[in-house]
Amino acid sequence: MKQVLLIGIGAGDPCHLTYEAVDALRGVDVFFVMDKGPEVQDLLGLRKAILQRYLPDHSYRIVQITDPPRARQPSGYATSIEVWHQQRATAYAAALQMELQPGQTGAFLLWGEPGLYDSTLRVMELVRERGVSLALKVLPGISSMQLLAARHQIALTRVGEPLIVVPGRRLASLGRIDNVVVMLDSHCAFAALSDPALTIFWGAYLGTADEMLIAGPLEAVKARILEARASQRRRKGWIMDIYLLRREVFATTD
Amino acid sequence: MKQVLLIGIGAGDPCHLTYEAVDALRGVDVFFVMDKGPEVQDLLGLRKAILQRYLPDHSYRIVQITDPPRARQPSGYATSIEVWHQQRATAYAAALQMELQPGQTGAFLLWGEPGLYDSTLRVMELVRERGVSLALKVLPGISSMQLLAARHQIALTRVGEPLIVVPGRRLASLGRIDNVVVMLDSHCAFAALSDPALTIFWGAYLGTADEMLIAGPLEAVKARILEARASQRRRKGWIMDIYLLRREVFATTD
Ligand SMILES: C[S@@+](CC[C@H](N)C(=O)[O-])C[C@H]1O[C@@H](n2cnc3c(N)ncnc32)[C@H](O)[C@@H]1O
Ligand SMILES: C[S@@+](CC[C@H](N)C(=O)[O-])C[C@H]1O[C@@H](n2cnc3c(N)ncnc32)[C@H](O)[C@@H]1O
Repeated sequence: MKQVLLIGIGAGDPCHLTYEAVDALRGVDVFFVMDKGPEVQDLLGLRKAILQRYLPDHSYRIVQITDPPRARQPSGYATSIEVWHQQRATAYAAALQMELQPGQTGAFLLWGEPGLYDSTLRVMELVRERGVSLALKVLPGISSMQLLAARHQIALTRVGEPLIVVPGRRLASLGRIDNVVVMLDSHCAFAALSDPALTIFWGAYLGTADEMLIAGPLEAVKARILEARASQRRRKGWIMDIYLLRREVFATTD
Repeated sequence: MKQVLLIGIGAGDPCHLTYEAVDALRGVDVFFVMDKGPEVQDLLGLRKAILQRYLPDHSYRIVQITDPPRARQPSGYATSIEVWHQQRATAYAAALQMELQPGQTGAFLLWGEPGLYDSTLRVMELVRERGVSLALKVLPGISSMQLLAARHQIALTRVGEPLIVVPGRRLASLGRIDNVVVMLDSHCAFAALSDPALTIFWGAYLGTADEMLIAGPLEAVKARILEARASQRRRKGWIMDIYLLRREVFATTD
């Protein structure tokens, strides 16, 4: 049997690894990393920094898997993603077959929390469907959403109220916004809202040296966020940002 | 100036502390703990175990704050909570004034993630409003929701879809349930649902020696969960449980 660990490594700060995660790193023979997107070099660098920091005297191998390009399918977003997951599964299955021996432990270092908008668990299911038998273990990690809350010193939830977490592309379809965390928003969905009762807590590159925070009434700070986003993106070539939108409550009812 | 740290300690497993959290523990002079609820002895024990484990050779003080009882207000839930927060703020302010000296660092060890249904941040705001000046720092921690996902080896989110996190008392008001994490559900709101398309992933006492997991179609496993809940509750005197409800998707559309 081959063991595969999906290890949440936090969203930027190497100090956010848990003791469980670091203990697990020590038993890994092969680390699998994807090379993908414009941020690939920076994020790969952060992963290597984590290994150097926590495994200074260990020997391990790093195997790079080339991410298949995500082609837009004519039949829509969900289908493109499904096709892309299948292609990833083929690439992962091949790498796990070739590079990991029975009895060995492989690991994927997953950004933030493995359960939050990360396809690796889904792809592992497809890998197993391809006949690769694996013992899987998932180790939770601090997500960007938690880091956003910690930095702004706010709670994600309010008493007795739901919290909604949503990808940017779905924000407009939510209807009423009371307390919503938005991730994966490359198109700045917040800019299309104009609601004087909304406050925004925004953060970019959280946990890294480039960390930026802006908070305030959406209408008042919207332009500043758009500007910061554009100029940082130009400077670094990529951006990771996340925000919480919250409706001020003027009267509480049961 | 007095420094106060709100440290997320994970939801049961001491290995889920982050390196950041443990580094911070080492600089703490006074730990403030609340005594509250039937689970108080067990959860206090877990906190003390964390301190013994990570600070075996340090000296620190533990100050117990007695939690004011939460009286039901005739004017409803939100008001009871607000009144209770005010009372807590009075108790915290007094403890911070008396037990923490300027230049010292105090800390609260918060269960799971400080931003998820935890009132301490809100109470600290009220403490400041009472004129106690504090430098505050929040350290994220692994939440019970992340542990639930890790144990069931599922993602919390599905591609392109929102995730809703909700206290049990609000589940019924959500309307359609697609992908919902339910916390704080002492009345078993799931039992009132009867929808053959829903799957439940349930976990209790996650991260502790009493951890229990049940998953399956809601209709098929509902009775088993109710039974396990009741018998564990009888045995230990209290229960912490959490679950994810997910509607099976039979066709994907964009
Ligand atoms: C594919 S999702 C993965 C999320 C990750 N699993 C987590 O727990 O944070 C990527 C999105 O997470 C958010 N994100 C991740 N890391 C971030 C960081 N350091 N600062 C700001 N946003 C971040 C951004 O919204 C980004 O579009
Ligand atoms: C007041 S909230 C605090 C949540 C905490 N801040 C967190 O991040 O998990 C308490 C609720 O969290 C959930 N919970 C906390 N710890 C848990 C555990 N170890 N196992 C199962 N559920 C847990 C239960 O739903 C419980 O009613």
